[in-house]
Parts: sequence; structure tokens; C-alpha cells
Amino acid sequence: MLGCNRPQTNKETAKIEADKDTVLLPSWSEGTSKHSIINFVTNTTKEGNSDFVPVADRIACFDNDGCLWAEQPMYFQLAFAIDQIKAMAPQHPEWKTKQPFKALLEGDMKTVMAGGEKALLQIVMTTHSGMTTDEFDKTVKDWMATATHPKTGKHYNEMVYQPMVELLNYLRANGYKTFIVSGGGVDFMRPWAELAYGIPPYQVVGSSGKVKYEVVDGKPVLQKLPEINFIDDKEGKPVGIHQYIGKRPVFTAGNSDGDYAMLQYTSASTAPHFGMIIHHTDSVREYAYDRKSSIGHLEKGLDDAAKYNWLIVDMKTDWKKIFSFEK
Amino acid sequence: MLGCNRPQTNKETAKIEADKDTVLLPSWSEGTSKHSIINFVTNTTKEGNSDFVPVADRIACFDNDGCLWAEQPMYFQLAFAIDQIKAMAPQHPEWKTKQPFKALLEGDMKTVMAGGEKALLQIVMTTHSGMTTDEFDKTVKDWMATATHPKTGKHYNEMVYQPMVELLNYLRANGYKTFIVSGGGVDFMRPWAELAYGIPPYQVVGSSGKVKYEVVDGKPVLQKLPEINFIDDKEGKPVGIHQYIGKRPVFTAGNSDGDYAMLQYTSASTAPHFGMIIHHTDSVREYAYDRKSSIGHLEKGLDDAAKYNWLIVDMKTDWKKIFSFEK
Repeated sequence: MLGCNRPQTNKETAKIEADKDTVLLPSWSEGTSKHSIINFVTNTTKEGNSDFVPVADRIACFDNDGCLWAEQPMYFQLAFAIDQIKAMAPQHPEWKTKQPFKALLEGDMKTVMAGGEKALLQIVMTTHSGMTTDEFDKTVKDWMATATHPKTGKHYNEMVYQPMVELLNYLRANGYKTFIVSGGGVDFMRPWAELAYGIPPYQVVGSSGKVKYEVVDGKPVLQKLPEINFIDDKEGKPVGIHQYIGKRPVFTAGNSDGDYAMLQYTSASTAPHFGMIIHHTDSVREYAYDRKSSIGHLEKGLDDAAKYNWLIVDMKTDWKKIFSFEK
Repeated sequence: MLGCNRPQTNKETAKIEADKDTVLLPSWSEGTSKHSIINFVTNTTKEGNSDFVPVADRIACFDNDGCLWAEQPMYFQLAFAIDQIKAMAPQHPEWKTKQPFKALLEGDMKTVMAGGEKALLQIVMTTHSGMTTDEFDKTVKDWMATATHPKTGKHYNEMVYQPMVELLNYLRANGYKTFIVSGGGVDFMRPWAELAYGIPPYQVVGSSGKVKYEVVDGKPVLQKLPEINFIDDKEGKPVGIHQYIGKRPVFTAGNSDGDYAMLQYTSASTAPHFGMIIHHTDSVREYAYDRKSSIGHLEKGLDDAAKYNWLIVDMKTDWKKIFSFEK
């Protein structure tokens, strides 16, 4: 469907204003962004409308980092991995002289980052394998309950975007199934996503390592192996949608070029569809970054938004509130 | 939970009889099997009961071949692949002299089978890759609408077990999410599973090939590649449950030793749980096979059923009706 985020006519706007419950998406400012979302959801859920989508096909996919929760000053999963390395260090005296662990333990993130993907992969593999899935699940939950964000001092699972939580609820209230489709690790997201977003584990698609089924001392466990299973990023996102969801989304939201293929795949549907990009424009309440940032790099998405009719959400003006803890 | 399929006391039975709607599981004969299922579902869904399971954790996993639909005289997906080879043959004159295609086209299944796993993999790869996911989806739907079972003359999607469809509905009516966890191909099951079982694509876990995202003539497509992605069988089933569902099942049903690990994994839970095995005992209405069959081989499951307290469902006596088309 084209025109899903075109400026509305006065008549349309008046109708939506009259129809909608005044508490719909309360953290969204009145304006084109909010209205185009409500317009699309209304059109796709009203029987008889030419854009009507049956409940079974109402699939909505959301990136996580920078789309549902913050991702600065570093991906939260990396902050988790660093904290795990620190916690594991006493059992690994060899790390005192071995990179990238040495630099990491000395707080020298510049040297860690200079190690590139290889160094990051080593850190992730070391902290995300060598235990059972149950043990890892507990480690994530414990970390989430204690670790805090360096800028806000809030727990990481409080760093979720209130307007997006409202959007997830609004879509579900209208018969949409909401999925996370993230480059982040699925075992890292599932332990807290249900509480934070109302999204159950089986609706979380993400990157993963291989696991192995074993019976240890008569007890069946799943061991996390130091081997990549699937990378759910860039061209991997439509692949992940196919492999894990099996239906093309009707509604897709992202914030970086890692979401480009997923948005493009959604927009190629012959059925009604809606694509949106969260643009980080608020350096005061959150962070402002796009074309020049390595985290959440957004360039192609901005360049092609008009071509694909993607809604660009301006966090600074479109969101009255970003985090629920804001005054 | 132990004791979920123990013979009930008179008092318990009387209570269930009084409580239950008389139309519950109508194709199941009155007896221990039916009553133990109803007992378990009642106990896990009644708030205040010591075996109560919150709605969010009510995960039920079902094998497909031989558990939800028939699998004799050959896996239906193999029948599909054979029909596809025949349909593709005019474009492949080289198959007239190349095994396993030559034997298959000549109807010589003995020679095909003598080629073992390698021959079967060749047949599956040839028919399950080299097209887009949308094209494959259409091929499966077309085949399902036309091909018929050699014994009953019914379409394959009519060969579903009526008592299991009732069980799926009953579980869902009690807040359970129902999943397929099958060794069969996920792209083969999803096009018809929603209609046949009420199970949407994103609740179907199965074996899969790799897919690749490409933009062809400006149109984004997913190409099916001749490369295995995941085999959802035996020890792969608990792995698949973890990767795709992310929660340990409370209720699990299978029929062959391919389901043993999944049943064992479920039974190791500290939460209430129920495991059942469909035993093919009816040579008249369906097929009778277990320890000596290569299709649906069941040996370890029968040997260890008592140890794990798995319910053995005797198709001949426990099911009043097997297929909905029976008179």
C-alpha cells in the first residue's frame, strides 16, 4: 500500500480525531507521524476497508537496539559482555596479558575496539558460551537487575522507549502479533523482553549461537557452544523473518541501515504495509546520531525513505516523552 | 509433575466427569488416556491448584508426521518430492540415465531407497531449492489441492488425526500455545498447517534449508538454497525448541524415537509437565507399526515410557475416530 504515511486530508484527520480514544499513544505528539500510524492501523483493521488485513496476517516486526530501547553509548549487550568478562577475570589470570581481555580489564576500550570484529567476537563468545542455556538465562536476569546505564543511572530494561511500548500495545490491541527482529542475541533478549515489551520468547527473533542437547548426570541440558548459528542483521533480517516467523510483515520498524533489508522486504509486499524509521534527533533527552555513527548507522534508510514511503519518526518532536522515568 | 497419567481414583474420575463439558475431546474413547489429559489440563489451568501453570508458560509441542497426520506408506513430504521430480522431468532429460532420478521416474522405489540418505537428500534438495520461497509456497499449496493418498484417496491434508485436532483446540481453549516441532520441512508444513490445525506459521518449528535475500529486477525475494540450515529431529528437537520457542514445553506429544529427546527434555522440567506417545496400533483404520518400522520407528519411547510417566495412546482403543472422513 502506498500513501500510508502521506499527510492526511482535513476530513480524514477530523474522522480519526473523532474516532480515536484520546489516550491512544499518549507519549506521541499530535502530528503527521502519530496520525499516519493510527490511520494505517485503522484502515487495516476495519472490515470492508480496501486495506483490510485479516488478523492472521497482522505481523509487526521491530528492531530492538535503538528502536525499542537505547543503544548508546554502546550496545547494552556489549556492556553485559564487558561486565561478565570482569566477573570472570579472577578465574582467568592469563587475561592479564592476553588481548582483548587485558585492555578491557584495564578500561582501555580504545584498544579493545581497535581489535575490530575479531576482538568483539572473542568477548561475546567467551561470555555467551560454555554454560547451559538455563545458567545463561539466570546470568542475564541477574545483570539486568543490578547493572545501570552510565548516563541515566537506570537499569537497562528501564531504557525502553515509552512511545514504542505504547505502539506495541496499540498494535496488539488491534489484533497485530508483535515480533522483535534484532541483530542482538536471542538468548540475551528473551529473559527480559516479555516483561519490558509484552513480547513472549517465541516472538523474539535474533542472532544466536549453536546449542547442543546433552544429558549430564541424568539431567537433560542445552549447552551453549562457541559457534555462530545465525546473524540476524542486514540481509539476515528478512531471512530471519522467513525462518522464524514465516509470514511477511505488514508493519516494520527499525532505526539503522541494519534494518534496511527488512524494511525493503516489507515494502515489496502486495498487501498493505507500513515502514517506519526511528531517527535519533534528541541529544538532550537521549542521543543524536545517524549518518556518521558506527552504532545505529543510518544513511541508506534516510536516503530512500521517500522512495519507499517510510515514515521517519523524529524523536525530538514526535515523542513527548522518551523514557517512562522522565519527569 | 509425576502422576499425570496414573490411573485416577474414583473420586477424581467422578469429579472430572461432572466438571467437563460432554463434548470435550469427542473422538477420544472414555478411559485412562482421555481422562489423564483432561486431568492434567484442568490441574494446570485452575488458579490455586498446586500444578497451576501461568498462561505465559503454557507451551505445547507436537510432532507432525505420525502424530498429527499419517506418515505411511511414506512420509507425505517424500510423496510431494517424488511428484515434483516427475513434474520437473521433461526439463531434465539427463535424469533418464542418472540415479536416483532414473529409478524414481521408473517407479522403482526399491532402487531409490537402496541409495540411502544420499539419494533422498538429492531428491529433497532438487525439489526444495532453486526457487523463491513464494514459488515453493505456491507449489506446496497446488500439490496439496490435487495429490491424493494411495490408500484412502483423500487429499493429504485430510489425513490429519481428528482426535489430535480436538486436542489442539482443547489446549488452546485452555490458554496453551500449540507448536509443531517436526523433522519435516518448515516450508512444506507452513502453507497448510494453519488451516489444518489452527497453528500459524510462526508456531511451526521444523527442518529447513538456507535461504538468501536478493533483489531481483527490483523485487526483493528469498531464494531457497540447496544447503541444510537445521535438522529438527532427535537431539535437534530440544535444540529447535530452544532456538525457535525459547521456553520449555509443559505438554509434548510425539510418536517415534525421533521425539524421544523432546519428550525427555520436557519431562526434566521442574514445572508440571505431560508427555504422550501416539502408538500406531490400528492396521485397519490406519497402520500398525512400531519397533520394526523404519518410518516412525518407536522403541526407546516404549521402553522408557513407564520411567518417564509418558502416556501411551493406543490408537485402536483410545480413538473412536481417526480421520474426520471415517463413517
